[in-house]
Amino acid sequence: VRVGSGARARLIEELLAEPPGARLFLIADDNVARLHGRSLAAELRDRGLDAELLEFPAGEASKTRATKQVLEDRLFELGAGRDCAIVAVGGGVTCDLAGFVAATWHRGVPLVHVPTSLLAMVDAAIGGKTAVDLPGGKNLVGAFHQPEAVYADVDLLSTLPDAYFVEGLAEVVKSAVIGDASLFREMESSAERLLARDEEWLERVVLACATLKGRIVRRDERETGRRAVLNFGHTVAHAVETVSNYTVRHGHAVAYGMCVESRLAVDATGFPERHRGRLERLLESLGLPTGRDSQFSVEAIVAATHRDKKVRRDRVRYALPRRIGRMLPGGQAAIVVDDADLEAALRATG
Amino acid sequence: VRVGSGARARLIEELLAEPPGARLFLIADDNVARLHGRSLAAELRDRGLDAELLEFPAGEASKTRATKQVLEDRLFELGAGRDCAIVAVGGGVTCDLAGFVAATWHRGVPLVHVPTSLLAMVDAAIGGKTAVDLPGGKNLVGAFHQPEAVYADVDLLSTLPDAYFVEGLAEVVKSAVIGDASLFREMESSAERLLARDEEWLERVVLACATLKGRIVRRDERETGRRAVLNFGHTVAHAVETVSNYTVRHGHAVAYGMCVESRLAVDATGFPERHRGRLERLLESLGLPTGRDSQFSVEAIVAATHRDKKVRRDRVRYALPRRIGRMLPGGQAAIVVDDADLEAALRATG
Repeated sequence: VRVGSGARARLIEELLAEPPGARLFLIADDNVARLHGRSLAAELRDRGLDAELLEFPAGEASKTRATKQVLEDRLFELGAGRDCAIVAVGGGVTCDLAGFVAATWHRGVPLVHVPTSLLAMVDAAIGGKTAVDLPGGKNLVGAFHQPEAVYADVDLLSTLPDAYFVEGLAEVVKSAVIGDASLFREMESSAERLLARDEEWLERVVLACATLKGRIVRRDERETGRRAVLNFGHTVAHAVETVSNYTVRHGHAVAYGMCVESRLAVDATGFPERHRGRLERLLESLGLPTGRDSQFSVEAIVAATHRDKKVRRDRVRYALPRRIGRMLPGGQAAIVVDDADLEAALRATG
Repeated sequence: VRVGSGARARLIEELLAEPPGARLFLIADDNVARLHGRSLAAELRDRGLDAELLEFPAGEASKTRATKQVLEDRLFELGAGRDCAIVAVGGGVTCDLAGFVAATWHRGVPLVHVPTSLLAMVDAAIGGKTAVDLPGGKNLVGAFHQPEAVYADVDLLSTLPDAYFVEGLAEVVKSAVIGDASLFREMESSAERLLARDEEWLERVVLACATLKGRIVRRDERETGRRAVLNFGHTVAHAVETVSNYTVRHGHAVAYGMCVESRLAVDATGFPERHRGRLERLLESLGLPTGRDSQFSVEAIVAATHRDKKVRRDRVRYALPRRIGRMLPGGQAAIVVDDADLEAALRATG
């Protein structure tokens, strides 16, 4: 993982020095293609590389088997063989979708991530999870496929719309809660600098999150145990996303999910009530939602948790912190919570 | 890999003793479902396991992203979580298709193979390759996903139509050429016993082929080098299948492909002309094609080799034997052959 302003320039030099494939296929949504993808592809071609850009319509609605199929048909038309490599340029949707294309094209070709959103830099581009959504649930079909390299250039974040930037901060807060208490304290004291997209601060944050996630994932690539800690806030978040038919943004759902699940943690793990308050205040100061959107009923959210793909034998499990910066140790990361307790936490939150 | 008559009974006992998933989803085409799948699912349910059978229309035409999608939608409807396992019951198409479903459902769930064709027992069920076809080419989208277990019950072969049985013999001959000279000699002297589906002989053959392939694949799971030897006969076979729009059966294409490629080997590796003759005679004695179907032109076959997914920088590579039972050593397994030499070999063959 290369982090920092200037990572884009480094990407080009490193692709030239050691191309991951005889031909490079960049995949980007049409927004990112306009902002970054076309110029990157043109520059690579100018420097003598065989690079093509494939575009798809921006938005989570594109993260489907149908879009994957369109991209594959295009790869076939362009004669992409097993010696090609995929360069995913974009946010979380592109990481997951283009990553899954790379995972299965000719049974797997090399993948390079160029995340262009904060969410992708701190989360989606790290860890090798790829997937598409099904009409009924997120990420139900996918694969584990580790990228050869990740180039996180915080300069690219300057073009990111506010809502997208802020939702990325939710995953940064999650990282801090699950494993970096000092990052959490720094965010509490410098929320404004972060919201102003201070470059130095962004580098610090992206590096801390990517490193933490990389460390967790290396120990548990296929999510058999320890990796589960990354799911803090996500059980409720996925339920809200399902109920909203994916109109709620992922980061917003995660922020609200952390508020609810930190309440569960107070009872289940002894997570200090004071820490729960700090978490809620930090999220608020970053402009993230801490209460339930009243158009989604408590009952619907509870029901939706049972459709989560991590549910085993209908018992819903939660990855809960013990305190800020500290999760329950490995094997205990997945705690079963009753529907009644979840319902109480949902009603108490916002 | 469990081989032998009685493997079906063992399958049931072992699934009961140590179920690979909380719920089992059997996948079979409608023919195999009628012959074996429904009774197997019923028996598993009778013994207390949670087992469902998913059917799809028989035939290579079903090995598509569309069929995969239908099966996935069905898994979702049935509430299949990440704690389920897939049991693939059928021939090569089912191995590849159901294997690919298992490889990507919730980013990979356990897979058990119950091959019901000779081709699947000696080849498709072994080695972890899964895939679907694209309109323009075979196996272009897929994944490596090793099965937890393979149960090859030769008793099931009694219901296999002749054409399917005989095409499986082509892969058996290929195994013998690439790594088992004594199996080749035994086949030469006992072709009739094999065609009569002598059970003891079938066990010997299936065990030998599955063991050989397993040994090769273990050394090179992701086909970076040594595994390429398995492709003897297959470069031409894939071209013929493409040209015929997949109306030629895979085993038939492989038999013809071996005839052509063994001619290439005479020049390229010093494969003895006498061995080439033995190979051709053995294929003939088994009722396999050794000449070109005149409806497919030499030119079209040559052109189609360039669409093979193993082609790198437009140079077509062949895995060629040095003698019966012996391939070129690892790194040299992929030999580049000019179009002119291929054309000559195609014209000389039948």
